[in-house]
Amino acid sequence: MSLVLVGSLALDTIEAPAGRVEDVLGGTATYASIAASHFTHTRLIGVVGSDFPEEGQRVFEKHQVDLAGMQIEAGKTFRWGGKYAPNFNDRETLFTHLNVFEHFNPILPEAYHDSRFLLLANIHPSLQHHILKQFDEHPFVGLDTMNLWINTALDDLKALLKDVDLLMVNDEEALMLTGERHYGRAARDLMDMGPEWIVIKKGSHGALLFHGERIFSAPGLILDEVIDPTGAGDSFAGGLMGYLAQAGQVEFDIMKRAVINGSLMASFCVEDFSIRAMDDLAPADIASRYSSFENLTRF
Amino acid sequence: MSLVLVGSLALDTIEAPAGRVEDVLGGTATYASIAASHFTHTRLIGVVGSDFPEEGQRVFEKHQVDLAGMQIEAGKTFRWGGKYAPNFNDRETLFTHLNVFEHFNPILPEAYHDSRFLLLANIHPSLQHHILKQFDEHPFVGLDTMNLWINTALDDLKALLKDVDLLMVNDEEALMLTGERHYGRAARDLMDMGPEWIVIKKGSHGALLFHGERIFSAPGLILDEVIDPTGAGDSFAGGLMGYLAQAGQVEFDIMKRAVINGSLMASFCVEDFSIRAMDDLAPADIASRYSSFENLTRF
Repeated sequence: MSLVLVGSLALDTIEAPAGRVEDVLGGTATYASIAASHFTHTRLIGVVGSDFPEEGQRVFEKHQVDLAGMQIEAGKTFRWGGKYAPNFNDRETLFTHLNVFEHFNPILPEAYHDSRFLLLANIHPSLQHHILKQFDEHPFVGLDTMNLWINTALDDLKALLKDVDLLMVNDEEALMLTGERHYGRAARDLMDMGPEWIVIKKGSHGALLFHGERIFSAPGLILDEVIDPTGAGDSFAGGLMGYLAQAGQVEFDIMKRAVINGSLMASFCVEDFSIRAMDDLAPADIASRYSSFENLTRF
Repeated sequence: MSLVLVGSLALDTIEAPAGRVEDVLGGTATYASIAASHFTHTRLIGVVGSDFPEEGQRVFEKHQVDLAGMQIEAGKTFRWGGKYAPNFNDRETLFTHLNVFEHFNPILPEAYHDSRFLLLANIHPSLQHHILKQFDEHPFVGLDTMNLWINTALDDLKALLKDVDLLMVNDEEALMLTGERHYGRAARDLMDMGPEWIVIKKGSHGALLFHGERIFSAPGLILDEVIDPTGAGDSFAGGLMGYLAQAGQVEFDIMKRAVINGSLMASFCVEDFSIRAMDDLAPADIASRYSSFENLTRF
C-alpha cells in the first residue's frame, strides 16, 4: 500500500566535524520520503520555492516519490543552517529562513485519498492536523514532532495526538510531554493522550516500542563513524511507516520489524551528509543491515 | 564447574526514596556470590569481623556458598552508608568504615585451586591481583572495577588487566580508561590493555559485549520500580560468571547468554534492598525473566 507524508522541504547548510556542505537537500519530508521509498510507493506533500534545484526534483523522481502534492511557489525554498559540536553533543542553529514555507497551506491531492497510511513528519502540529482532516476515511497516522512544538504549540499538539495512532518521540521529548523519566510510565501517559502505539527513541541506545502492555527494545547499531546526524529521526519515521504501509496491516510483530527498518534507515542516514547514504541503497544493502540488527541481539 | 570469587563483605546502611535500612548484608562479594550461586557452586574469599551476624552466615549457607575462604577477624565488619537522590540520579556516600577490611590479605584456600573460573569482584586491584597470582594454573578471569580505582590505582589496575580475560565496566568507566565515548573504539582500546572480552554496561540501556570484531547488545529491562540499585553491577558480574562457570567453556554464544543472565540478576537485585530479591529466587523465576529478555528483543 502507499504512504502519504507531509513535512518540510529545505536546502540545508551543515557544519560538522567531517566538513561543511551548502544548500544540500534537507527537510523532514525529504529524509522521510527517501527512507520510505525503499519500502513502498510514497506520496509527498510539501512546498518549495522557484529556486528549488532540478537535481532535488530528480532525486525524488529517481525514488519514484509521487510529487502531485509538491507545491512550487514564487520565492525561495526554506533554508536552514546548523553546526554540530565535536562528538555531536550539541547542535547550534545558525539560521532559519522559512521563505515560502512560512505560508505553507498543505493540500491533500485528490489522488492521494485512497492511501491508508499517513506520516505526519515533523512540522507545526496545526499543519499536520490540517492534512489529516482532509482524509475522508481515517488512515493509520504516524506522528513525528519535536521539542520546539512541545514548548510553543502544546495545545495544538495535544489536540492532534487524540487523532494519532503512532507517536514517535525521543527520550527528552517523552520527558517534556509527561514529566516521567521512567520509559514505561512515560509511554503509558503518552497512550493516555491518544496514540495506541508509542516509540521512544534513545539515540545510540536504540528505541523502545510500546503497545498496551507489550514492549519491544530495538538495539542501537554501533557505527564506525557518524558524519551528519541531521534527519536521523525523519529517516527513522520514514523507514518505519514505509515498511508498515508495505505490510498493509498493523500488528505487534509487524510493528517490531517496522521499528527495525526505521532504525536501519536512520543508521544509513547519519553515515553521510543530506540523503546521500540513502540515495544509492540496493535491496541487498538493506537486507544486510537488517541482518546486522538481528546478529546484534540474537542470543 | 565451580567459581571462585573475591570481593568485599559489608554491612550497609542505605537511604533511598523507598525507605531506609541499617546494617543489611552488602559488599561486592556478597551480591556477586548470591547471584552466582543460582547457576553454579560458588567459592567465596573475603573477610568479616567478629560482629558479623549469624543471619549473614545463614544466607551464604542457604545458597551453598563455600565459606572456606571467609576469614573472620577480631574487630568490626566493613560498614558502608549511602544515600540515593530521588530518581537515583546521584548517590552520596555517607560513611565508609573499612574496619577489618583495611588489612585484608586474601588467601586462596587449597581446596579452591581446581576452579577454572575466577571472579575478581570490585575491590582494590592489588588485592584482586594477589588472589589471581595464587592460582597454579591461570583460570578464566572476570574483573569488575570502579571509578575510584581508575582514579587512585590506575597502574595497579593496568598491570592486572594484562592478566584478565573479561573486563566488565560501565560506560563512564570505559570513557575514563580510554578517553573514547564511542563504544566500539572504547572496547578496542580496552582489548589492547589485555582482556579479550569486554562488557560495557549502560545502566537502564542494557549492556554491550565485545569480542574481536563481534558485538552483542543486551537490552535493559523496563522495571516497574527500582528500590535500591546498590549491588546491581556486582550481581551482574556474579550472574554472568556463575553462568559461564556452569557452562564450563567460553564461546561467543555462551557469553551472550551469560550477559543476559548477568542482566537478569541485576534486574532482580534492584527490586529490593540488599540481596533480598535474589534470596528466594526459584529456577522458574529465573527462567521466566530470561524469557522476558527474549520477548523484549525478538523480531
